[in-house]
Amino acid sequence: MQAEIVFTGTELLLGEVVNTHAQFLGRELAALGIEVTLHTAVGDNREALKAILQDSLARTDLLIVTGGLGPTEDDLTSETVAALLGLEMVQDDNTLHKLNQIFAHRGLPLPASIKKQVFVPRGAMVLPNSAGTAPGLMIRSGGKIIILLPGPPRELKVVFENHVKSYLNKLAASGVAMHSIVLKVTGLSESQVQDRLQEMHVPGNPTISYVAIPGEVHVRVTARAGSQSRRMAEETALRIAAELSDYVFGQDDELLNETVSSLLLERGLTISAAESCTGGQVMKLLTDVPGSSRYFLGGIVSYSNELKTDLLGVPGEVIASYGAVSEQTARAMAEGICRVTGSSFGLGVTGIAGPEGETPGKPVGLVYIALAAGDKVFCKRRIFPGLRTGVRAGATNTALNMVRQFLLGLHQG
Amino acid sequence: MQAEIVFTGTELLLGEVVNTHAQFLGRELAALGIEVTLHTAVGDNREALKAILQDSLARTDLLIVTGGLGPTEDDLTSETVAALLGLEMVQDDNTLHKLNQIFAHRGLPLPASIKKQVFVPRGAMVLPNSAGTAPGLMIRSGGKIIILLPGPPRELKVVFENHVKSYLNKLAASGVAMHSIVLKVTGLSESQVQDRLQEMHVPGNPTISYVAIPGEVHVRVTARAGSQSRRMAEETALRIAAELSDYVFGQDDELLNETVSSLLLERGLTISAAESCTGGQVMKLLTDVPGSSRYFLGGIVSYSNELKTDLLGVPGEVIASYGAVSEQTARAMAEGICRVTGSSFGLGVTGIAGPEGETPGKPVGLVYIALAAGDKVFCKRRIFPGLRTGVRAGATNTALNMVRQFLLGLHQG
Repeated sequence: MQAEIVFTGTELLLGEVVNTHAQFLGRELAALGIEVTLHTAVGDNREALKAILQDSLARTDLLIVTGGLGPTEDDLTSETVAALLGLEMVQDDNTLHKLNQIFAHRGLPLPASIKKQVFVPRGAMVLPNSAGTAPGLMIRSGGKIIILLPGPPRELKVVFENHVKSYLNKLAASGVAMHSIVLKVTGLSESQVQDRLQEMHVPGNPTISYVAIPGEVHVRVTARAGSQSRRMAEETALRIAAELSDYVFGQDDELLNETVSSLLLERGLTISAAESCTGGQVMKLLTDVPGSSRYFLGGIVSYSNELKTDLLGVPGEVIASYGAVSEQTARAMAEGICRVTGSSFGLGVTGIAGPEGETPGKPVGLVYIALAAGDKVFCKRRIFPGLRTGVRAGATNTALNMVRQFLLGLHQG
Repeated sequence: MQAEIVFTGTELLLGEVVNTHAQFLGRELAALGIEVTLHTAVGDNREALKAILQDSLARTDLLIVTGGLGPTEDDLTSETVAALLGLEMVQDDNTLHKLNQIFAHRGLPLPASIKKQVFVPRGAMVLPNSAGTAPGLMIRSGGKIIILLPGPPRELKVVFENHVKSYLNKLAASGVAMHSIVLKVTGLSESQVQDRLQEMHVPGNPTISYVAIPGEVHVRVTARAGSQSRRMAEETALRIAAELSDYVFGQDDELLNETVSSLLLERGLTISAAESCTGGQVMKLLTDVPGSSRYFLGGIVSYSNELKTDLLGVPGEVIASYGAVSEQTARAMAEGICRVTGSSFGLGVTGIAGPEGETPGKPVGLVYIALAAGDKVFCKRRIFPGLRTGVRAGATNTALNMVRQFLLGLHQG
């Protein structure tokens, strides 16, 4: 089965945002065994959009269009599709009702412009959007299937996962041709990961590919072996995970902060953090998860040495003898924040994020990460590759991974 | 002047890599005043590529094609373009000479497959590639200009910077056809922003368009009026900025944390933060900036009420009378963190990020943001639209914007 994708939004053509939809939908459709033959990105321009959609529908039976479903005047997608298919725009009462509820709930009037979202092409199936106000739409017309997805990445993912994926899966069910698994790694550079895996002599199928983002390397295993694809990908992923041991912190769409959150909630445990070089990023990630107040108590960002001593009780002699970036300081920070907040776990992170601050024997990228858990304190020393962003993200991932590993009874490396 | 870009490579359609060329070229061409009207991504398939290039050349006079210039069998771009334009492929002696040199230098024989790169469409200008072996090409034919760039991002950038940019600059110099300004807004939803601007009755040129990301709405003003474009865009942007007043926190590529950082450094001032619902995000953003230890002292994430009282000295009666989410608590948090760290400025943020935690009269999205500066304390009350991520990002932007506004002597709204 083949498909085309049309991405709408002048911001894409201007390079104002990265087109992350292309990658997300590309992977999802590939995993479903649907071959995407063309991507087109077009601006918020009625005539251009109409011409592109017309060309696309002449070539393909399955068309996915992203963006342009919002409330503003430059949101043209559903109207343009309707015009092209000769469908009238009609009011969808369910959507109107939901919008009214959302705004009333916050004590705000319904903005005039948002009412536009209530109109949909006649006969379209409305795909509810639990992450935003603009629903997705599915239209079947003349043997063609047209799926319209909202532009904001989170909303697009939610609508796709909840309403489109299973539908396309059935549509393409003739047989999933391939299976991919992504292992997420932190604390090693892309080339270090590749060197370690090269020694394994992994054969040509499954293939292994790499994507590096700040603080992470994603190792993708793709097996193309019909009904054996999944088993084959899983076997190879297991071997890779064993080789990379505690540098691996997750798989596929699993998010480290959500995993840690679930584990803490399950066991009724609490956590706090004392951060230096990560400057709040560990706590930010922990509190990104809804309901985090049930396990996260708080913490301290001690950028200055005075705060390390005054608030966390790191002894001045420890800092004087070993330095603020040392295993001893990291351990004292983790223990200190446990004492201050009374939490079950305490994280302590101190290091040199760069670009400045290195001293002899302590290069940029050096970070000590400590986890205090009851009367035990674990500490890891890492030299993270990359620039400031990569070092901070790597240290944050490693800190949360230590909690995950502890709670799962895994080896701390 | 208008252009289209065609990206070749099956890996783009499979979502194996992110299309970073789209953003890089989009920005570069926009900066040159060239309007990109369409992006197309197509796989390494001769027939599909030919059809796409043909369609594209029928619409545009300037076509940029990326990828497919390498040595392997799936590199089809130059042959396909030559076939389409009826040009013969001829050997380019300079390129051959250079390849021979490179390989001789390493003591290696010239690989058979690489000789493919020596052939170029007759009449093409060869654009040397100092970062790799495949050169770019520029072809002028029938009033059209076709520029072929190598696919690896580093090589594409080098060839573009060294050989294409100045050429296009001259080509577009007849008068920069358009000018865009982006205003970044926080604390209002996309539809609220549009409703406010609709009352201004902004005419059709400049155009105004909107992009919403969590916690931000970007309002883009684009003027198309030859040499008058910049002046026209600036005038409209000023009117919009006045209308949206203190909801505006930045313009174009300006980053709020970098602006705040420069202002603090310039004046030798320091800052600290006390965060509740933002959970460390304000501090994370402040410390994203290299050298932040020169102005950022540290702070406290006080998720629990105990920490608000114990560490920040927020009186228990204040929390009991007004609640943890109140103007009084936010003010006491900002003053408290100043006291603890001795910084020039203190930020206090408390609110309901959601999805849980709302109480009568205090909906999800409600956040109080306080700035303590010497003996003054300012406080803003906002109801941020969107989900948890949007509320937290909006509160973070608003907090940093209060510092920016104070340092620039602007009205606090």
